[in-house]
Amino acid sequence: MSNEQVAYTTSTAEKPLQITDIYELEKVAEKLIPSGGWGYLHGGAGDEWTMRQNTKAFNHKTIIPRILANMDKPELQTSIFGTGLRLPVIMAPVAAQGLANEEAEEGTAKGVAAAGTIMAISSYAGKSIEEIAKAGGGAPQWFQLYLSKDDGFNRYVLDQAKENGMKAVVLTADATVGGNREADIRNHFTFPLPMANLAKYGQGKGQSIADIYARALQKIAPADIEKVAAYTGLPVIVKGVQSPADAMLAIGAGAAGIYVSNHGGRQLDGGPASFDVLQPVAEAVDKRVPVIFDSGIRRGQHIFKALADGADIVAIGRPAIYGLAVGGWEGVKSVFDYFYRELEMVMQLAGTKTIEDIKNTHLVSRLKLHLDNTLN
Amino acid sequence: MSNEQVAYTTSTAEKPLQITDIYELEKVAEKLIPSGGWGYLHGGAGDEWTMRQNTKAFNHKTIIPRILANMDKPELQTSIFGTGLRLPVIMAPVAAQGLANEEAEEGTAKGVAAAGTIMAISSYAGKSIEEIAKAGGGAPQWFQLYLSKDDGFNRYVLDQAKENGMKAVVLTADATVGGNREADIRNHFTFPLPMANLAKYGQGKGQSIADIYARALQKIAPADIEKVAAYTGLPVIVKGVQSPADAMLAIGAGAAGIYVSNHGGRQLDGGPASFDVLQPVAEAVDKRVPVIFDSGIRRGQHIFKALADGADIVAIGRPAIYGLAVGGWEGVKSVFDYFYRELEMVMQLAGTKTIEDIKNTHLVSRLKLHLDNTLN
Amino acid sequence: MSNEQVAYTTSTAEKPLQITDIYELEKVAEKLIPSGGWGYLHGGAGDEWTMRQNTKAFNHKTIIPRILANMDKPELQTSIFGTGLRLPVIMAPVAAQGLANEEAEEGTAKGVAAAGTIMAISSYAGKSIEEIAKAGGGAPQWFQLYLSKDDGFNRYVLDQAKENGMKAVVLTADATVGGNREADIRNHFTFPLPMANLAKYGQGKGQSIADIYARALQKIAPADIEKVAAYTGLPVIVKGVQSPADAMLAIGAGAAGIYVSNHGGRQLDGGPASFDVLQPVAEAVDKRVPVIFDSGIRRGQHIFKALADGADIVAIGRPAIYGLAVGGWEGVKSVFDYFYRELEMVMQLAGTKTIEDIKNTHLVSRLKLHLDNTLN
Amino acid sequence: MSNEQVAYTTSTAEKPLQITDIYELEKVAEKLIPSGGWGYLHGGAGDEWTMRQNTKAFNHKTIIPRILANMDKPELQTSIFGTGLRLPVIMAPVAAQGLANEEAEEGTAKGVAAAGTIMAISSYAGKSIEEIAKAGGGAPQWFQLYLSKDDGFNRYVLDQAKENGMKAVVLTADATVGGNREADIRNHFTFPLPMANLAKYGQGKGQSIADIYARALQKIAPADIEKVAAYTGLPVIVKGVQSPADAMLAIGAGAAGIYVSNHGGRQLDGGPASFDVLQPVAEAVDKRVPVIFDSGIRRGQHIFKALADGADIVAIGRPAIYGLAVGGWEGVKSVFDYFYRELEMVMQLAGTKTIEDIKNTHLVSRLKLHLDNTLN
Repeated sequence: MSNEQVAYTTSTAEKPLQITDIYELEKVAEKLIPSGGWGYLHGGAGDEWTMRQNTKAFNHKTIIPRILANMDKPELQTSIFGTGLRLPVIMAPVAAQGLANEEAEEGTAKGVAAAGTIMAISSYAGKSIEEIAKAGGGAPQWFQLYLSKDDGFNRYVLDQAKENGMKAVVLTADATVGGNREADIRNHFTFPLPMANLAKYGQGKGQSIADIYARALQKIAPADIEKVAAYTGLPVIVKGVQSPADAMLAIGAGAAGIYVSNHGGRQLDGGPASFDVLQPVAEAVDKRVPVIFDSGIRRGQHIFKALADGADIVAIGRPAIYGLAVGGWEGVKSVFDYFYRELEMVMQLAGTKTIEDIKNTHLVSRLKLHLDNTLN
Repeated sequence: MSNEQVAYTTSTAEKPLQITDIYELEKVAEKLIPSGGWGYLHGGAGDEWTMRQNTKAFNHKTIIPRILANMDKPELQTSIFGTGLRLPVIMAPVAAQGLANEEAEEGTAKGVAAAGTIMAISSYAGKSIEEIAKAGGGAPQWFQLYLSKDDGFNRYVLDQAKENGMKAVVLTADATVGGNREADIRNHFTFPLPMANLAKYGQGKGQSIADIYARALQKIAPADIEKVAAYTGLPVIVKGVQSPADAMLAIGAGAAGIYVSNHGGRQLDGGPASFDVLQPVAEAVDKRVPVIFDSGIRRGQHIFKALADGADIVAIGRPAIYGLAVGGWEGVKSVFDYFYRELEMVMQLAGTKTIEDIKNTHLVSRLKLHLDNTLN
Repeated sequence: MSNEQVAYTTSTAEKPLQITDIYELEKVAEKLIPSGGWGYLHGGAGDEWTMRQNTKAFNHKTIIPRILANMDKPELQTSIFGTGLRLPVIMAPVAAQGLANEEAEEGTAKGVAAAGTIMAISSYAGKSIEEIAKAGGGAPQWFQLYLSKDDGFNRYVLDQAKENGMKAVVLTADATVGGNREADIRNHFTFPLPMANLAKYGQGKGQSIADIYARALQKIAPADIEKVAAYTGLPVIVKGVQSPADAMLAIGAGAAGIYVSNHGGRQLDGGPASFDVLQPVAEAVDKRVPVIFDSGIRRGQHIFKALADGADIVAIGRPAIYGLAVGGWEGVKSVFDYFYRELEMVMQLAGTKTIEDIKNTHLVSRLKLHLDNTLN
Repeated sequence: MSNEQVAYTTSTAEKPLQITDIYELEKVAEKLIPSGGWGYLHGGAGDEWTMRQNTKAFNHKTIIPRILANMDKPELQTSIFGTGLRLPVIMAPVAAQGLANEEAEEGTAKGVAAAGTIMAISSYAGKSIEEIAKAGGGAPQWFQLYLSKDDGFNRYVLDQAKENGMKAVVLTADATVGGNREADIRNHFTFPLPMANLAKYGQGKGQSIADIYARALQKIAPADIEKVAAYTGLPVIVKGVQSPADAMLAIGAGAAGIYVSNHGGRQLDGGPASFDVLQPVAEAVDKRVPVIFDSGIRRGQHIFKALADGADIVAIGRPAIYGLAVGGWEGVKSVFDYFYRELEMVMQLAGTKTIEDIKNTHLVSRLKLHLDNTLN
């Protein structure tokens, strides 16, 4: 264990990437990232059934191409909470990005800023909020909060978030304990690098995931949303929502956004694909607040389908981390450029000029097509 | 054949196990158990389609994580017939456990007792009821009954059960003939070790499964439930129920519990997965008596799903036997500890503090999600 | 080609078989039968999708075991057209059985007779009706008719059928042209052995399947049923029915039985599995005449499911031919014994004492179980 | 790149082919066509999920054989826009056929003419409209139009089409940008051979697919249909329709035919199989204009199913190109002969004597069969 901590050396690559697809990028990244770090970043919970379903589920619905839409030059820009984005894709909060590239979250922040979109900074980032904000060069960022049992720590990081200009707080509520990530168990994985926010608050590196969760607050209630919102004065987005009921509770407690996610299949295996619950949750939200979506996106068509089913913007996690591993900050930007190109192509072929047009698109269930061959 | 009987030597391991998942444990166990014993313990009937469906069927329904449930420290304890259990998982009756480890049922009884739950002792155990009861050290146990054509034998074993403090009788009714277990046919398997209850009653070892079934009673009727209950004064649980109709008949005849099971896919191939029939059977039972469930459980999420669909407690068979093979009584305990940890994690992520909360949880059909994307 | 005709030598085996399952028997048979003959006997049409579906489709419905049925000693005997059968399984008409074993149809007839059931003799048998009838030793047999363009031939074979005591005529109507059996195309297969009925009528061996079909009548109408019935005075069973409409037409024209079959997936690929259409056809027949079923049966549970879904008896083709290859007439008998044992076991486990009980059993759709978990 | 352009040498084969099935032909073609050309001709978009679904989707519905239909000698001839066809299968517009065989579109035209049907000439053909028309020897041909941003080019090619006797214009509207065809990206594919229409209009060879699409018009509206129809006086068929809405728009704008296609899965991955949308589109068209169908056809049963679900004629693309590679013009003819034979066989087995009979046939959904076993 301590050997690994000493010896953890990972990619230092920094170059723009020609990305054909994420599956190929993933294979290259796997070769660059030490196995312990790879297991943590890539793995999912239990049998990884839910993780695999996350991407497969996009095939449950199909996009019907529209060919006489009289449009060209799709417009991908959108905005959320008054922040303009070049594309409806943001960077999901991912912990410990130094596992992938020495640039760590600073690289990601720089790449995401260059891509013209928002980065969400993890509570468990390797770099401090201040360092990441600085690397982002003033680009809009959000701070993702794992509530600690130690309320002093909660105040410390939220203070940091405010001081460094974070535009919103993403309150992750689906990880009150760690999922049974078997790669980490088999690798006896402990974080080989410090987590800056914890370290600055006086907690060192070399801790296992179990150590991390031992400090995390398990009891999360609607009142916590109100508390964080009141303390920070920032919009609070509740992350990990998979049920209409939780969406209702969160909005009732003042949530400014609903983030539909199953944590990339890393928490509860045997739960539904994130995409499969997006539509019912979005219907419950009923446009009162924005809906953010992640888990499983690997293609432009996936972004399109999520927007058509009720998301306002989507987030990517692992794909950007793979880009970080293979190309540093430029690799991260290349990943967002890849999704830009793919979504632009899909929009043209689907006959949708704007993000709003996508949201007004009706997807068709594949199973329903088999059963009754009725397009509605 | 007689060589094998002479030569049957199996694991003598005794150590606690670090269990990541049961699939891995299974592979280790396979190397320790002689092939004839392995075929008997591991195999299923016919094409093993029903056996495979048993585990796959848990994916037919998904658990919707609840993230604002304001809870921590899940409480797994429950009780049945007034017996308190540390977790809602008991040991299913499994015959001839000496095939897996020389400790045989004594090891299992000791491990199950240490795990704080109930062991069901098979009629065809390698050790006598007395030996197993003693090994359990006073922990609660049930006796599983295969009715014999020889009513003297039935009385003999039920007397033993009563004398040794068994808390209930599990009357297995789904095995009036043996399933077409092809591994046993190909291995020309005969039991290499004596079955203590039979031996004490004057019947030797070296018999084939066909020999065993030749002695078994084929005609089982509701009246047999009444008869066993009257003779023993114990609660009688009817095992192998897969239809609402049989549940009704059993309760009408005085059954104190309904045990939904397809015998681990070892009897009728081409029947439904055990989990697929649990909900309709439980609805028919309508809480009049407890429902016990087994067949296919390999994960904490499977336990959760069974409880949510109507089971009061579940049983495991093969997983514990694999633990017995690899770690003796300590291995058995480790298997229950694994299920404890997994279920505890699932309860936290699903926002259910107690077993009762699980029972009030509504699972969502995956196919329905595809078809109409409606959560209800 | 002519070399092959000269050189065709196949199995001469004659011995009883220990059959674990048909898949294993199939592998042994494949080694004994020359590749051209194997391709003809084993292969299906086109992509063989329908052929594979034939067996898979039995998993579309499940048998719910009944465990308190108070029964033993299942009774498999049944009867059709006044002929008593030891089990509800007959021998389907299969052409050119000399490809599998030198005993050819004589072996099959002897084995089927020993099994206590009916053999249906193919128009394209290698042996003459007389030879086969003799080999059957007086056991009940049916004659399967392919209508020829040459009505003289039709009369010739029907005369032979009557003279040799055939109890019914099976009029195959689903093979007015040959399916695209690619194994035969790739093997440039021509029949290496004479077909006795054709030969006696003056037509030689060495013909391709195309030659055979060139002689076959394509236009088959309800009137042909009446014609055959009137000419022979025998019950006429129409084989190849897959639609309620054809069942209605056939019965209206005097058919004495409806034979649901897709010719073992050898004719129209892209059609439904034979089992998938059995229930709607049987409902249309509504017990006015017996329903015979074949295509895809490899297990006792398949027989059970076909009977529960509306068949009165079922037929097997390839399994018996594999038995013929590996064990001559004794192998054929062993195959029927295998099905006897399997069905007997399934009947016991399903709680059905008689064939009539099976017919009154309600199977449960697996997809429906997934969708609504409602047993009805 | 330039090396490849210099060096591109492909098949010069010219011979009739014995075709067992298209999958086998495809494997032979792959060996003859250089990898860059193969990637372009064979590949699809993105994950190729939609491409694979195109062929798999034919299994969503089954043909119920009819066996008492009293018919023989199926009649495959049909007509469209007054042009008689020997079979209801035409040649789809495929670009750059010189990639497959030096005969290029001249070979295809000759083979298609010999087969007695229509060739649709691609805008991006390697040979000029004049050359291809001449090679067709007066056989009926259609011209496929990709609208260019340069209206001069549009007029130039439409003038050529009229001068060379094209019977209709196929206006492709589903390719306003190129799909993400990864084989081409990985191969850095540029067209190694000139495209005659572009070349004659003054644009050279060696261009990438991106170059091609840079010239293509993205904005296509119903008005363009009217414009092309008015300019040419020819029937305009709109190709790429996958929704009832676009069919309505096209017919409203004067389309003379609706061509249901997803471009062989080469444009929008994640869209439905072409066959899955055929029926709803055909119902919207409601026989007002003919429906042409392509994408995924590899079997006679596929043609039958498309006609039964609403197509008037179907088109094949890749299969004919494989025939061109392996056998030049004779190979193309052999492919059409293969489909003729297969469809003829299916018609006989389905009991449909004419193309009109096929159109009146009701296919049965496989999933519906599983769910309720009701044939309707």
